[in-house]
Amino acid sequence: VTDTENHILEEALLRTVQGFIERRDSQGLRQALDRVRPADLADLLEHLESEARLFVFNLMDPEGAGEVLAEIQPPVQERLLSDLDNERLSAIVQELPPDEAADLVGGLPPERAREIIDAVGEEVSEELERLLPYPEDSAGGIMTLEFVAVRADANVQDAIDTVRAKRREVEKLYYTWVVNDSGQLVGVLSLKELILEPPERKIAEIMNPDVIWVDVHSDQEEVARKVKKYNLVNVPVVDAGHRLVGRITYDDIMDVVTEEAHEDISLMGGVIDQQIGEHSTVKISRARLPWLILGLFGGIIAAAVVHRFEASLEKIIALSFFFPVLMAMGGNTGTQAATVVVRGLATGDIMPVHMAGRLWVELRVAVVNGLICAVLLGTVVGLWLANYRLGAVVGLAVLTIVLYSGMVGTAVPLLLKRWDVDPALATGPFVTTSNDILSLLIYLCLVTLLL
Amino acid sequence: VTDTENHILEEALLRTVQGFIERRDSQGLRQALDRVRPADLADLLEHLESEARLFVFNLMDPEGAGEVLAEIQPPVQERLLSDLDNERLSAIVQELPPDEAADLVGGLPPERAREIIDAVGEEVSEELERLLPYPEDSAGGIMTLEFVAVRADANVQDAIDTVRAKRREVEKLYYTWVVNDSGQLVGVLSLKELILEPPERKIAEIMNPDVIWVDVHSDQEEVARKVKKYNLVNVPVVDAGHRLVGRITYDDIMDVVTEEAHEDISLMGGVIDQQIGEHSTVKISRARLPWLILGLFGGIIAAAVVHRFEASLEKIIALSFFFPVLMAMGGNTGTQAATVVVRGLATGDIMPVHMAGRLWVELRVAVVNGLICAVLLGTVVGLWLANYRLGAVVGLAVLTIVLYSGMVGTAVPLLLKRWDVDPALATGPFVTTSNDILSLLIYLCLVTLLL
Repeated sequence: VTDTENHILEEALLRTVQGFIERRDSQGLRQALDRVRPADLADLLEHLESEARLFVFNLMDPEGAGEVLAEIQPPVQERLLSDLDNERLSAIVQELPPDEAADLVGGLPPERAREIIDAVGEEVSEELERLLPYPEDSAGGIMTLEFVAVRADANVQDAIDTVRAKRREVEKLYYTWVVNDSGQLVGVLSLKELILEPPERKIAEIMNPDVIWVDVHSDQEEVARKVKKYNLVNVPVVDAGHRLVGRITYDDIMDVVTEEAHEDISLMGGVIDQQIGEHSTVKISRARLPWLILGLFGGIIAAAVVHRFEASLEKIIALSFFFPVLMAMGGNTGTQAATVVVRGLATGDIMPVHMAGRLWVELRVAVVNGLICAVLLGTVVGLWLANYRLGAVVGLAVLTIVLYSGMVGTAVPLLLKRWDVDPALATGPFVTTSNDILSLLIYLCLVTLLL
Repeated sequence: VTDTENHILEEALLRTVQGFIERRDSQGLRQALDRVRPADLADLLEHLESEARLFVFNLMDPEGAGEVLAEIQPPVQERLLSDLDNERLSAIVQELPPDEAADLVGGLPPERAREIIDAVGEEVSEELERLLPYPEDSAGGIMTLEFVAVRADANVQDAIDTVRAKRREVEKLYYTWVVNDSGQLVGVLSLKELILEPPERKIAEIMNPDVIWVDVHSDQEEVARKVKKYNLVNVPVVDAGHRLVGRITYDDIMDVVTEEAHEDISLMGGVIDQQIGEHSTVKISRARLPWLILGLFGGIIAAAVVHRFEASLEKIIALSFFFPVLMAMGGNTGTQAATVVVRGLATGDIMPVHMAGRLWVELRVAVVNGLICAVLLGTVVGLWLANYRLGAVVGLAVLTIVLYSGMVGTAVPLLLKRWDVDPALATGPFVTTSNDILSLLIYLCLVTLLL
């Protein structure tokens, strides 16, 4: 089943469901949706109008509705949540795994969140109160409280009994963790071992004491890097006293990786925090306008720079022909260098301490690329306008701009990272704009000095 | 342990290791490295000079060396592979899981790959011959041949015996798959079920028949989307006859997601296929020069466009002041629209069939943002140069350029996807360059018509 075939199947399901909705046939609709997986139901709901969406959603039992809600895109989820009454919403929150319940409740307006917490059962509200204080992008914010832990002095049969007791509660269970008397994490054991070892075997003898863990206050990017580096499927979360408090599963890490890539790519593209499924003109416009206006004022500064050199321009009108190419060279070189650094910082392969090494690599590359481009452009300009002096000056400008932009593109993201600002800003319109201005300034200064 | 603390620990290990190397103390070095995890050893080797790297690497036994080699960054891996003799390399390949062995051998020059295949044992060479024909970026290219499958008419004890028989061979084992007499995939069973169900229970009664699979020829991006959508930890791979032929594990999917994000971000930044760890000036220059030269020739075309309007420029020299701001507005708007579409195509939330809907969303946004920017820039220009007519024309140019760039930025990635070209190209210098030229053309045409 390829993506296209999948899309055809989705369309067919969508049309069937729309038929049932038009006939208000709840019975038939419930049957039709019975065998559809939650993730597919979420896709389906995303493609319905809000009234039809609510109609379908209200047919589901709270558990199924919760699974679907967790899979749905944020802008649609937000609209759906505001359409649900508190009774229905608390019934759903009651059935969700704690981490997903906390994500959902944490995204509500504070007053409504309070109402939901008061409405759910004591056990769930306690879990929510424990999880909600953690920042959304910390290990605590993405961990779940459901895990299986056994004592090091227990045996295999005890561990199997623990798994059995938590059978319904703990999903995606592939490991049990081992703790000491104080609840501190001391080892890990895969279910494979539990299956293969005799029931009376002591856990301490078969566990792996070299367990990789994360601190509950770690940033989610750090957690993701660790999970990727050591190929973990579940990672245990410990508090300041090294006590086991939760676990993070691979699917949440996958979401973190996707989210971080999305944020970096958006910032590079000059879009602040726009969800892909967003259709509201006002919200999209608000996500993009800051950069456009920044670019606008950058452009006005560039205009003022050019204005200062009006005398030179009046003498040689052809000088203005090369504004576009020089700005493009500065922008492209800077973005190329910054892109590699931003990626390296995201994967952890490049760190702020590597500044000198990176600058040296980029300097070499800038010299090579700058010389090649300078010779090319200088020759074309010289031949075209039969003005070799102008060609030489334009070529020199290209070389200077490429060198300068390569250095700026490398240094800025590393400095931003050092100052705890998102380095992806360095590849967006912010640096492009300042490079535009400086490229023009370099060019016009060289021209005025040399011609 | 934060990233920074981690870095300090890595530095300390690096210095210890360098000490042993200087003293040529193999014994001490072996002991020091004994408790370091493969992924950390890989990091360590990346930071050593090539001679020291080879010295350390040759101290490891083939199995450990293979694990490290699989974790090492591609540019370093390549250099290390070319330093190893065939005997050592075949011993390592012999010990690797089949998918990693195939990745390694597939990356070698064809002649050397042949020599390695001939040198390894029959079982391994057969696995390699089966895996190597699949394209690197297909399901077949990332699957491993090691999995556990049981027949539907077997019982739980049979399944446990099968797991036991494959204990050493199959890593990251969390599921067993269920097949019929013809080897076709019919169900899935988690190890949790195997632990909790009585030994005589029939597999057919407890398996989940709703198993999600991928075709061996699927593109890796499609596989990753499915794994993310359904939160899978392992996905079975089937051939055209629905026979189970392999499995793909979550860590390989994580690599795919990271790799695809890396490719998109690189293309956006105008860098073709540059590895983050690459230090060779020639290779980096080669990855970037094509875009720079494309931008250069785009810029020359832009110069030719401006040249055609030399007469207008001579009359009003101030026209050239606004080249930078108008080019920036076109570039930024186009990139913003394209970024969202490219992301949506990557996650599967936007498809080429959604063209009309996307254009409508972007048109609304472009009208709002275009009007705001037009009024802002028009007013500034009018007041600054006390020329309201010029201000009005520049404002009109901004509006036209924003509308046009928004449409192009939306349509181009969707069309590229339809034509099976990587849509990320649409956010790179290719579209930026053509937008530069067209923005100038729009501006100069409007000016000549209206002033």
